[in-house]
Amino acid sequence: MCDLYYKSNRQYPKEVHEQVEQKLRDLEVKSGKRLGSKENPLLVSVRSGAAASMPGMMDTILNLGLNDDTLKGLVKQTNNERFALDCYRRFIQMFGNVVLKISHDKFENIIEQSKRLKGMKLDTELNVDDLKKITDRYKILVKSETGRYFPEDPKTQLRMAIDAVFDSWNNDRAAAYRRIHDIKGLAGTAVNVQEMVFGNIGEDSGTGVAFTRNPATGDKKIFGEFLINAQGEDVVAGIRTPEPIEKMEAVMPKAYEQILGIKDRLERHYKDMQDIEFTIEKGRLFILQTRNGKRTANAAVKAAVDMAKEGLITEEEAILRIEPSQVDMLLHKSVDPNAKSTVIARGLAASPGAASGEAYFSAAKAKGMAEEGRSVILVRNETSPEDIEGMHSAQGILTARGGVTSHAAVVSRGMGKPCIVGAESLAIDENSGSFSADGMTVREGEMITIDGTSGAVMLGEIPLTEPEFGEEFGTLMKWADSVRMLKVRANADTPEDAGRARELGAEGIGLCRTEHMFFEQGRIRAMREMMLADTTRGRKKALEKLLPMQKSDFKGIFRAMNGFPVNIRLLDPPLHEFLPKEKEEISKLAYDMEVSEEKINELLETTREFNPMLGFRGCRLGVVYPEIFEMQVMAIIEAACECADEGVTAIPEIMIPLTGTAKEFELLHGNINKAAEEAMGLYSKKINYSIGTMIEVPRACLVADKLAENAKFLSFGTNDLTQMTFGYSRDDSGRFLKAYVEKGVLEKDPFVAIDTEGVGYLMKLAVVKARNTNMHIKIGVCGEHGGDPDSVEFCHKIGLDYVSCSPYRVPIARLAAAQAVLKEQKIRESSTA
Amino acid sequence: MCDLYYKSNRQYPKEVHEQVEQKLRDLEVKSGKRLGSKENPLLVSVRSGAAASMPGMMDTILNLGLNDDTLKGLVKQTNNERFALDCYRRFIQMFGNVVLKISHDKFENIIEQSKRLKGMKLDTELNVDDLKKITDRYKILVKSETGRYFPEDPKTQLRMAIDAVFDSWNNDRAAAYRRIHDIKGLAGTAVNVQEMVFGNIGEDSGTGVAFTRNPATGDKKIFGEFLINAQGEDVVAGIRTPEPIEKMEAVMPKAYEQILGIKDRLERHYKDMQDIEFTIEKGRLFILQTRNGKRTANAAVKAAVDMAKEGLITEEEAILRIEPSQVDMLLHKSVDPNAKSTVIARGLAASPGAASGEAYFSAAKAKGMAEEGRSVILVRNETSPEDIEGMHSAQGILTARGGVTSHAAVVSRGMGKPCIVGAESLAIDENSGSFSADGMTVREGEMITIDGTSGAVMLGEIPLTEPEFGEEFGTLMKWADSVRMLKVRANADTPEDAGRARELGAEGIGLCRTEHMFFEQGRIRAMREMMLADTTRGRKKALEKLLPMQKSDFKGIFRAMNGFPVNIRLLDPPLHEFLPKEKEEISKLAYDMEVSEEKINELLETTREFNPMLGFRGCRLGVVYPEIFEMQVMAIIEAACECADEGVTAIPEIMIPLTGTAKEFELLHGNINKAAEEAMGLYSKKINYSIGTMIEVPRACLVADKLAENAKFLSFGTNDLTQMTFGYSRDDSGRFLKAYVEKGVLEKDPFVAIDTEGVGYLMKLAVVKARNTNMHIKIGVCGEHGGDPDSVEFCHKIGLDYVSCSPYRVPIARLAAAQAVLKEQKIRESSTA
Repeated sequence: MCDLYYKSNRQYPKEVHEQVEQKLRDLEVKSGKRLGSKENPLLVSVRSGAAASMPGMMDTILNLGLNDDTLKGLVKQTNNERFALDCYRRFIQMFGNVVLKISHDKFENIIEQSKRLKGMKLDTELNVDDLKKITDRYKILVKSETGRYFPEDPKTQLRMAIDAVFDSWNNDRAAAYRRIHDIKGLAGTAVNVQEMVFGNIGEDSGTGVAFTRNPATGDKKIFGEFLINAQGEDVVAGIRTPEPIEKMEAVMPKAYEQILGIKDRLERHYKDMQDIEFTIEKGRLFILQTRNGKRTANAAVKAAVDMAKEGLITEEEAILRIEPSQVDMLLHKSVDPNAKSTVIARGLAASPGAASGEAYFSAAKAKGMAEEGRSVILVRNETSPEDIEGMHSAQGILTARGGVTSHAAVVSRGMGKPCIVGAESLAIDENSGSFSADGMTVREGEMITIDGTSGAVMLGEIPLTEPEFGEEFGTLMKWADSVRMLKVRANADTPEDAGRARELGAEGIGLCRTEHMFFEQGRIRAMREMMLADTTRGRKKALEKLLPMQKSDFKGIFRAMNGFPVNIRLLDPPLHEFLPKEKEEISKLAYDMEVSEEKINELLETTREFNPMLGFRGCRLGVVYPEIFEMQVMAIIEAACECADEGVTAIPEIMIPLTGTAKEFELLHGNINKAAEEAMGLYSKKINYSIGTMIEVPRACLVADKLAENAKFLSFGTNDLTQMTFGYSRDDSGRFLKAYVEKGVLEKDPFVAIDTEGVGYLMKLAVVKARNTNMHIKIGVCGEHGGDPDSVEFCHKIGLDYVSCSPYRVPIARLAAAQAVLKEQKIRESSTA
Repeated sequence: MCDLYYKSNRQYPKEVHEQVEQKLRDLEVKSGKRLGSKENPLLVSVRSGAAASMPGMMDTILNLGLNDDTLKGLVKQTNNERFALDCYRRFIQMFGNVVLKISHDKFENIIEQSKRLKGMKLDTELNVDDLKKITDRYKILVKSETGRYFPEDPKTQLRMAIDAVFDSWNNDRAAAYRRIHDIKGLAGTAVNVQEMVFGNIGEDSGTGVAFTRNPATGDKKIFGEFLINAQGEDVVAGIRTPEPIEKMEAVMPKAYEQILGIKDRLERHYKDMQDIEFTIEKGRLFILQTRNGKRTANAAVKAAVDMAKEGLITEEEAILRIEPSQVDMLLHKSVDPNAKSTVIARGLAASPGAASGEAYFSAAKAKGMAEEGRSVILVRNETSPEDIEGMHSAQGILTARGGVTSHAAVVSRGMGKPCIVGAESLAIDENSGSFSADGMTVREGEMITIDGTSGAVMLGEIPLTEPEFGEEFGTLMKWADSVRMLKVRANADTPEDAGRARELGAEGIGLCRTEHMFFEQGRIRAMREMMLADTTRGRKKALEKLLPMQKSDFKGIFRAMNGFPVNIRLLDPPLHEFLPKEKEEISKLAYDMEVSEEKINELLETTREFNPMLGFRGCRLGVVYPEIFEMQVMAIIEAACECADEGVTAIPEIMIPLTGTAKEFELLHGNINKAAEEAMGLYSKKINYSIGTMIEVPRACLVADKLAENAKFLSFGTNDLTQMTFGYSRDDSGRFLKAYVEKGVLEKDPFVAIDTEGVGYLMKLAVVKARNTNMHIKIGVCGEHGGDPDSVEFCHKIGLDYVSCSPYRVPIARLAAAQAVLKEQKIRESSTA
């Protein structure tokens, strides 16, 4: 066997050439045969090595070394002319297809024609004469398709095959696959050149594939299939149906037993589940290849935990064995892989899982239909906070616009609902209540299925499979928890989410957004009253109506998080988000509020913003209208006091949003303490609350030392921090971010994984500055990045105390946090070794 | 004389009290008189010291120490009862008004009543009896107004007067004045207590004020006025009209000569123009106070240059003597200070100078009327790039919205046109063609006057005064140029602006925005064609039409800047800015372009952005549509080649906007070089061009080391950098920035002066990083801050190579850059001393 690494290029360089010669000589010595010999020819297989499982990569060429002369030698060696001719035909076809790029069908047509001409059934075996004619016609096909004769010289065949492997590394499909699966840092592919053994040399021969464990379930039991009297491609091609590997026991008991033994040896050696290719030549077993087997998420978890228990690997290795992103799949329904579906559009996979439901185009309609017991998919151009209730009612959300951190995406992930965003081919006509895509139209109420894991939008109701948590998953998480240093919290705005977060292992809430609470029925009215009030007194009066509602929200969350910290962010969005936008709604609001439409339009006009992301929101509201934050703080502390009476321990962390200067923090810090004192006074209780701030604007990173003087905690809002550090609006950047990732301007979407070079630089700077003035300050992350494994690793590296993410990503973060520790240990060990 | 410093507070502390006692004893010893003595009473004046010229501050109390007993002593001392009673009356009135806060009018009414009752004319002098009655009634007034008797004890009087001075430091008007004039770092005010001398003791006595030079023109000639037989407040009160000081020569020749001598001595001592208060008591001259005199910008320049030439100060001191912001006033028309006007609204003073014109509410109308020869003020809610032509045609611009760096403000300053923005009380009704403010309505075509230096909007046409450049101004600039290290360039987009910039001393163009060129008649059509093209080919075809137009723009600018570098920024704004917004215009465009309205609406929809500031613009356009930048680079290099034939040396610096990653720069750097090579090939010429980038997004600062590897220059776009570092949209931040400055959250509007703590931190970091990889990289600033003196000083400190600002601010920047060097030298000298 010879392994050659080289990264592509039509002609491999001299060193590789010399290596090929050397290895070939080794093979010849070992086998006693010679490549190109008429007497005792060496035949070899050529396959791509390291990256064999990469789609688009050239896989295998068998029987290389045959030509009219060496064919004779093969006949002499085997005394089996039909077999030899069968090998020759296979070789020309495989080489012609894979190296010379001639369509597979053209070769198959020749076989079919010969059979038809002779009136043979298609599954009849070809005899020596048939095969001779077919190989001749194959050569003619090659000449006519490529303009050149089929290469007769085995060394030329070998060179061309090796070139083809190297070249395929750079073909579009392989490149796309590597990009999608974020495979980096490989120099290129290896090429394996092996002496041929033949599974097609009689009934005592065969070929097959075996997994050392079940790749679907992880069960420790051999799994695979085999074919008698066949070569590798027969298993794949589907012309003959292979038998389950267990049946080998009856047909070839010795070889079967050998496989069982080898499978265990291979697992012991590679310490992972193996995917083995084997051939039996005249009763003798040859292992052609083994590699780590692909497996489902469930199987991955079970196999890893089992192996650790078997002592094959350590618990730490088991933790490192699972891709955190796989965990995602364990937590959501998925489209039944066996179901047929018509994909009519593709968007960005924004929130994993699959869902079916009737398409509705407004939040109100979606809510109404859901209340009638229907399953609903909410289809919108984009969503806004006003759609929250509709999103809650829906099984899944589909938008034509927006990126993976758009409103729809963020909220859906928080809710754990499947969501596809930015399905740009969707043309939504809200008025008529329909959307069209790919030439098809879906009307209101028609069933669709969305797969938020893949981004596919499908017609009709597709069967879904339920998520399962194996016992092993619990074990794995327990191990991970014992290793990790980062705490993991959840972003949750409701008692339900908070409860779910606890179930999934969250150790507190890292971000409770209070604005969603204002959009609920009955509350938005008070909010609007506040906005329409001209005086502080008027605003306070309206806010008083909101206080009891906010208080009851907080009580619910405190109960769910009994004894764990709850980080509550004071009102963040610009006020105009609370106003209606449609003319009709404005009229209705004017009527309800007993003010003129003009007054509302005026308010809309004065609050309208060119760049709301950089506008009048967050702590800026708190500075200009202190009464809003004051009400919220009163509600928080009163809720905590009332919880104490129930025996519930509330640990509120009050978080100021969007701080950019130390003065903002100082001013609001004072106001919050005052309101908190007042609330505690009312109940004659002492609540263990703390005050801190979000770090979202770049400037906050630069003055983190000053913020840390009085802040008890800092929490990076990495979404906004990324937006402002790059100057990318997450609502608008879709139009160039895709091109940026494709052109390699950005390695990854910075809204998915923290941009460590830029945003990360600021974060590191902030951590160092903050700890410099306040050693004990608690620092975390509450952006969407808190659930991204690479970002979690980065947060560990820069010494954060916790990450916070949507409840459904908590297990991912727990695992990623543990892996971060283990990877760091590895690096440390290897650098001290 | 005793000077007491203390920062306010109702009761000054013990140390101050002791100081007062000590100083008082000194005064008593020196004068041989005693405070409160019935025989030989000491009378004093109390005035605020250092901050005497601050409006709202308590000024002076004269004749302190009088009561019914000491009055007798004064009569004895002077043998003049009428005089003594006059002093007593003045004292009660002044003390009552200034310390006890009783309205001045109430005292004056008492005098008027007594005169009327006796049938006396109002300008008749009061006799002893009148004065006795009046002082009695004054005391009754004090009792009834304050509930307390007038303080008889001179020490109590003194303590109360001193308290009042200290207190006035913190009153609203004084605080507002300090905020507006950015007066900081003062511990508080001083109090002067002086022995009284009397200008009201007869015809050989008097009082007056003198400037050592003319405060309006700077001429070296005494300037001032005086009154015979009067006390200080008579000069100010306007009851009697003072005489020009030159007339003293005839009346009191000795005193006059003394003043002339003292004026020169004072100038020699203080090395600055003095504003002197004096009193003549029985022929003897006393100088009560001297301070640096306030002067007009013209006078300031002339006086400083003259003094340097006289050897009174050095050239360096002359440079430091001029507030750079004063230079602004030299360059613009101003409202005649003697004219009467009705101010109907106030906005932000966005671009200095005053202008009168007829109000028009659309750019088209403004342009049309200007073409008919009318003077026009363009009045808009806000302006957009589509208004450029209208702004060009107008004498001045007035907007109801926006901040000092809004579109209207920036463009106006670039054009050197007066502009007021954010005049929020303006209610503009475009449909009816009118605006109302302060209860008055101005219709289309009615005359208004705007003062962009003060922010006042006035009814009708107000007389304006022309700007004047004295010869001394040229001298001062020459001195400044020989001192400064920063180069000063201008932001200019047209040959006219470029020419003006050269006249004002610009050493090149630091920012030539190319987008304005696309809005001109005929060009926007090609631009829109490009946007409507679906293919790269279609876009190129439309761009080809723009190339010759761009080329001719650049040629004009190169000619104006012959031999100086011209930094050209490639297309920056989001494409949607080039599309019409109104329904009617859309229909017209569809008709013109022969496409459906739907197609345009679709384009509008797909290019619409939530946060255009953070959207698809700058180099992002260049990466996705390389053909746009390519056309621009071809136009630049072709223009340079054609200029070379004319003997004009073009030094183009091609600037990539909005870069945030090194990859963006690399990619575009390659594209630009390719296009430039192609263009030079066409002409068989070599052009000395360089490629660099703007630093506008925070991330660019963090990767400046990588950008500097290939960039020849970096230019801080501090407007956008400020927006993104703070997360403040300059279009929207008006709603909270004002409150922020008022509440002290921000010391200054960061769009006016660079925020050195945050934005400046990033700039410093970028400079250090960039110079680390590329020692010779040229680094400048091209934001609005380039013309702000404090910001220029900061740019000098962090070692930039140049600043660039609008042409009219070039002289300011030149002066500020020189001052920065001198201030640094001072600090260095004082630290080594």
